[in-house]
Amino acid sequence: MKTKIENIVETKIIRLFTETNPLLLDCGAAFSPIDVAYETYGELNSEGTNAIVVCHALTGSAHAAGYSSEDPKSIGWWDSFIGEGKPLDTKKFCIISSNFLGGCYGTTGSSSINPATEKPYGLLFPQMTVRDMVRVQKSLIDHLGVQKIKTVIGGSLGGMQVLEWALLYPEIVETIIPIATAAQHSPWAIGLNDVARQAIMNDPDWHKGNYYEFGQPEKGLALARQVAMLSYRSEKEFQQRFGREHQKEKGIDYLNQFNNSDVFQIESYLRYQGKKLVKRFDANTYLYISRAMDIHDVSFGRGTLKEILHSIKIPSLLVGIDSDILYPISEQKNIAESIPNSTYCEITSPFGHDAFLIEFEQMAKHVTEFLEK
Amino acid sequence: MKTKIENIVETKIIRLFTETNPLLLDCGAAFSPIDVAYETYGELNSEGTNAIVVCHALTGSAHAAGYSSEDPKSIGWWDSFIGEGKPLDTKKFCIISSNFLGGCYGTTGSSSINPATEKPYGLLFPQMTVRDMVRVQKSLIDHLGVQKIKTVIGGSLGGMQVLEWALLYPEIVETIIPIATAAQHSPWAIGLNDVARQAIMNDPDWHKGNYYEFGQPEKGLALARQVAMLSYRSEKEFQQRFGREHQKEKGIDYLNQFNNSDVFQIESYLRYQGKKLVKRFDANTYLYISRAMDIHDVSFGRGTLKEILHSIKIPSLLVGIDSDILYPISEQKNIAESIPNSTYCEITSPFGHDAFLIEFEQMAKHVTEFLEK
Repeated sequence: MKTKIENIVETKIIRLFTETNPLLLDCGAAFSPIDVAYETYGELNSEGTNAIVVCHALTGSAHAAGYSSEDPKSIGWWDSFIGEGKPLDTKKFCIISSNFLGGCYGTTGSSSINPATEKPYGLLFPQMTVRDMVRVQKSLIDHLGVQKIKTVIGGSLGGMQVLEWALLYPEIVETIIPIATAAQHSPWAIGLNDVARQAIMNDPDWHKGNYYEFGQPEKGLALARQVAMLSYRSEKEFQQRFGREHQKEKGIDYLNQFNNSDVFQIESYLRYQGKKLVKRFDANTYLYISRAMDIHDVSFGRGTLKEILHSIKIPSLLVGIDSDILYPISEQKNIAESIPNSTYCEITSPFGHDAFLIEFEQMAKHVTEFLEK
Repeated sequence: MKTKIENIVETKIIRLFTETNPLLLDCGAAFSPIDVAYETYGELNSEGTNAIVVCHALTGSAHAAGYSSEDPKSIGWWDSFIGEGKPLDTKKFCIISSNFLGGCYGTTGSSSINPATEKPYGLLFPQMTVRDMVRVQKSLIDHLGVQKIKTVIGGSLGGMQVLEWALLYPEIVETIIPIATAAQHSPWAIGLNDVARQAIMNDPDWHKGNYYEFGQPEKGLALARQVAMLSYRSEKEFQQRFGREHQKEKGIDYLNQFNNSDVFQIESYLRYQGKKLVKRFDANTYLYISRAMDIHDVSFGRGTLKEILHSIKIPSLLVGIDSDILYPISEQKNIAESIPNSTYCEITSPFGHDAFLIEFEQMAKHVTEFLEK
């Protein structure tokens, strides 16, 4: 007899903004309709005060924990972190995870149907910002009856949302845990994103964003992913994992360098990662989300960066990863130094930026300690 | 009256390998003809013992110093380093600089005319290795009457050639100065090169290498360059130089994100660098040279890396750059530790890998001291 799979979770979809109740975006547009895909784990108490908001990263989804009711093989991206007895303990907390505005996993985004044309928005979708994403999440938690949020937590672009939560809604957020993130997207990170976007837009199959009837710009999106992967991992990990090993045993086929018949394992790995993303992610969405990251700047329209971070008064746990080249520890320390009531902790890992999706033991220790305080 | 421009130099071209005297390449092919473009600065003494060999990097040329006789505005890429009273002093030494095998600045490469077809080789060019490049350079110095080489010096891919010089021709090389380089190309660096190559090969204008009658795969080559630029410089430099400044004063044009009308300065800078390379460099050549870097491994076919580096007995000055993310200082230190008679020195710079083309004062100090010993 097979063990029954527990923790089947359903991704729900709710329309939060309509024509009569549109969202006013940072770009100035009043935008609707907006559907939001979300999951919850654990029960909200009657006062609505035990919520935790989890924010996902660039290619993430609402499916953060448990097994998907639609695909029982699909386990949530932070499942080791969310559940009974885990750091985000579903016995104590009601954890809320939603696909952000502009995503392609159920929440309205560039690949959603534009009611005006009955075709996907493509480039007619407005450029949303991280703040816009957080405004939509706020509407969701209002709908769910949340009064106070114990903590908002997330890594990378998730961490950018976390910082904006503290700045937009300080009255309901009790603590924040931004992980391996940025208060302002750095020029190096912008450059990487721009190169990734050019890879997509250079692909003739992109068709200026109108590719939906023909299929994805596969080569371009795969290449964008590979550029990103080189910044998500570390030289050290690639060295340990792949070294200079080849796909073929016989060594280098000097005469067939460019026919892909023989490549280093690192190349094979990157290409595989590229192809994997093509199957699960929309190219225009990649453009919009990466651009939202580039625009991200908590000080924009508010004051100096130092002042703005200083205005965050709630307890904040900043998590850095020693091998992260994308959002280096110096950046995390700078944020921590500017937030008065902050603690900085560091994950030791060869996995680079991606360590926040891998090093659960170290993360668990820091997060559990912080939440217990 | 205008000051007379001194130091006009001529790039000479010589045929070093012919049908009756072909070069046996690592790939097994006996290849000819091979023309080599080179420049010399200073006089070779009658014993032929005061030569210095300078090795250039990926997109470099033989034109390392002085003003080109063909274009008086074109100053050599290491002019601050080579000349009277400079670290590579033309009063004492005869400095020899040549475009390497497979290059596109006068030495035979992928863009040269294939005598068999009377068209450019394109992908019919054999995949050369760093060792092949050095064998061609050896033939050049033999032709010039050089008996002993005071030092072989170069950064990046130049440094890879330097290491191979010490291993292939220990009897004539007296010292070496490898700068910001690799003894084996690392998987992270291979990954970056592979992404750059894919950018070129994804471009429909590449035509599987047969683009010469139509023009370059401009978008692809420009993108390849931008990927590389992100690894040649440092986050810190980009932060100091560009920050989050925009091209337009009015701020972000949220509604026109993808029409290139408004970009961050870092994006504008990278795109400009990409376009600049397209004007001066051949796309197929980029594929071949970057692949030669990936194949580079001083231990290949010889023994273990440690043994092979240990077998280098001549005085060696290893130069690392503290902000280099492509060939990090840990890699330079590892090389230095394995070469018995070596000295390690470090350049402090925000310019990342490119510092070997910028930080002349620090480089001059270390190199002059080393050469005087």
